[in-house]
Amino acid sequence: MERVEALKESAFKRHGFDGFLVFDTANLLYFTGVSGISGLLVSGESEGTILVYEVNYEQAKHEGKNFNVELVKRGEDLMKKIAEKAVCLNMKRLAVDSLGVESWRKLSKATRGKVQLGLRGSIVAELRKTKDKTEIELIRKAADLTRIGMDTAYEVLSPGMREFEVAAEIEYAMRKRGSGGTAFDTAVSSGKYSAFPHGGCTDREIREGDLVVFDFGAIYENYRSDMTRTFTAGSPSEKQKRLFEIVMRAYKAAFEATRSQAKARDVDRAARRTIEEAGYGEFFVHGLGHGVGLEIHEAPILNSVSKDLLATGNVVTVEPGIYLPGFGGVRIEDTVLVEKDQAEKLTEGLYCLNTK
Amino acid sequence: MERVEALKESAFKRHGFDGFLVFDTANLLYFTGVSGISGLLVSGESEGTILVYEVNYEQAKHEGKNFNVELVKRGEDLMKKIAEKAVCLNMKRLAVDSLGVESWRKLSKATRGKVQLGLRGSIVAELRKTKDKTEIELIRKAADLTRIGMDTAYEVLSPGMREFEVAAEIEYAMRKRGSGGTAFDTAVSSGKYSAFPHGGCTDREIREGDLVVFDFGAIYENYRSDMTRTFTAGSPSEKQKRLFEIVMRAYKAAFEATRSQAKARDVDRAARRTIEEAGYGEFFVHGLGHGVGLEIHEAPILNSVSKDLLATGNVVTVEPGIYLPGFGGVRIEDTVLVEKDQAEKLTEGLYCLNTK
Repeated sequence: MERVEALKESAFKRHGFDGFLVFDTANLLYFTGVSGISGLLVSGESEGTILVYEVNYEQAKHEGKNFNVELVKRGEDLMKKIAEKAVCLNMKRLAVDSLGVESWRKLSKATRGKVQLGLRGSIVAELRKTKDKTEIELIRKAADLTRIGMDTAYEVLSPGMREFEVAAEIEYAMRKRGSGGTAFDTAVSSGKYSAFPHGGCTDREIREGDLVVFDFGAIYENYRSDMTRTFTAGSPSEKQKRLFEIVMRAYKAAFEATRSQAKARDVDRAARRTIEEAGYGEFFVHGLGHGVGLEIHEAPILNSVSKDLLATGNVVTVEPGIYLPGFGGVRIEDTVLVEKDQAEKLTEGLYCLNTK
Repeated sequence: MERVEALKESAFKRHGFDGFLVFDTANLLYFTGVSGISGLLVSGESEGTILVYEVNYEQAKHEGKNFNVELVKRGEDLMKKIAEKAVCLNMKRLAVDSLGVESWRKLSKATRGKVQLGLRGSIVAELRKTKDKTEIELIRKAADLTRIGMDTAYEVLSPGMREFEVAAEIEYAMRKRGSGGTAFDTAVSSGKYSAFPHGGCTDREIREGDLVVFDFGAIYENYRSDMTRTFTAGSPSEKQKRLFEIVMRAYKAAFEATRSQAKARDVDRAARRTIEEAGYGEFFVHGLGHGVGLEIHEAPILNSVSKDLLATGNVVTVEPGIYLPGFGGVRIEDTVLVEKDQAEKLTEGLYCLNTK
């Protein structure tokens, strides 16, 4: 319930709302720990009311013991029901974390001008940015499982395998040790397709000498982790080695710049400068990293236009890359925990291009 | 490009728009086959313009050869860019498939009153409801892979295993034969937790005599499939057998009612009546089914308040269940293809409670 209290502190005391309405799936998990619910209405007095359809009603009652759990009947209008509750609770200023435009209109109409709505997803994003001890332990476990997956990639990769066959071994290794699934679609991108940062995983047969980018993560109790390594199938060429060395240098420069109070854009800059100086600036086609937690992409964001300031308890990725169209790509990524004077790698090791 | 033409036909000729803006991820895949893009703007004259950030620009050019692919620079305002294009193309009535309220406001403001916006996700949902031959073949492959997963569940289930360990075997079996991942979070819900329709998959140890609900699907080239079976770990009790027989009868009644021109609510009714007559009506706590395709839940919807009429080419699930709190649940589900006088099961078989 500490998280709901922190929400009240921020939304009610600092931002002047008297109600908060949570719809976003990850935000709902963050505050309640309950999945499959449709909304959470937080008011000043109560802990909050979970709104849930019949299909998940029993489960929500079981898992959401600290909350008031209210059934939404099939065919009942959720927005109308919430508006009535807000009016009934005499709310004047109700913040909403996120909503499609259609539902927003319904909700707005149903309050009949009695409740002023404000979109404030940023309030929750700000809270979620700083991970508490429990969250850090769960991400740590997800990261350990991810590292097991990367060990598997390192061990099984060989020319002649198809990309999805390698992915099958990676995911199986993580899953049978307790991963709750994949943090996002596992990428095993080989050969010239490794030059696509989101190349995915196809039935392409991996060939001798291919660069292969592995980018994936495990899940532990809804918390995610993110890790990328690039290996060659067989011995690397001189050009592949050179790209790897530049990306590795960029990774180290960025990692060393990652600490509390650092500007996110400066951390991006540290990696980008290294790659630019090596003459490959135009081929580092994405930002340096992003926050990781209940979602694979969340605040803060680390890129050249970010306004975020890093803080102790942020969990972010550091992932520079170089992508040469028609040739291939190299990316190295760890999930790291931001601390006072430095960062701690939650995923770590296997900083090599050769697998054997 | 047939799909874009069908969109133009519906949105422009029948609904009077002169532009269509696609943001929804599954809709973008449906029209372009390209992943990782941020939007698609369709006008009367052109095939459409894909809007994509630098990170996926090369990939979009490679995969979206039939489209005009336009780069969105980092820090550039996507809504402003789109609004400018719409004004420039002299659009008067621009339909949008889906959008958060914040982006909607930005887009609306940036058109400076020159373009009238209309939210019309329903136009695309309507098109996607009827699967073409290519789509049916892909769902068929996803269904075949799903059946392989269910064979594995049937073979490996035994008391003493943890839920996630069984899930690991199921997912591995599907993945190494070419599944693109899991259609949704694999559920292996055992014992009294099988009474939660979305019980998920935990580290719970499966015990002798437990009901175990397996609900999962494979993915093949972005198309999904959905299948549920309920097995007991060890020999079933008389009460378990009775529940299974009722659900099986409800499944058959609903399956036989599934055909073109049937009202979706009548198909739901066929299953619900069977379960009600057996005295368990209050424990069938969800609708009968839903459409399946690029998304695991899409149109049409089969429940007691649905207004959908089934039609040839719909792919839907038929999934009645009975959930007794504290005891356990039984659900049977297939993904089926709606045809003129009947439906065809795409997933099939293993209609049994015993595994050995």
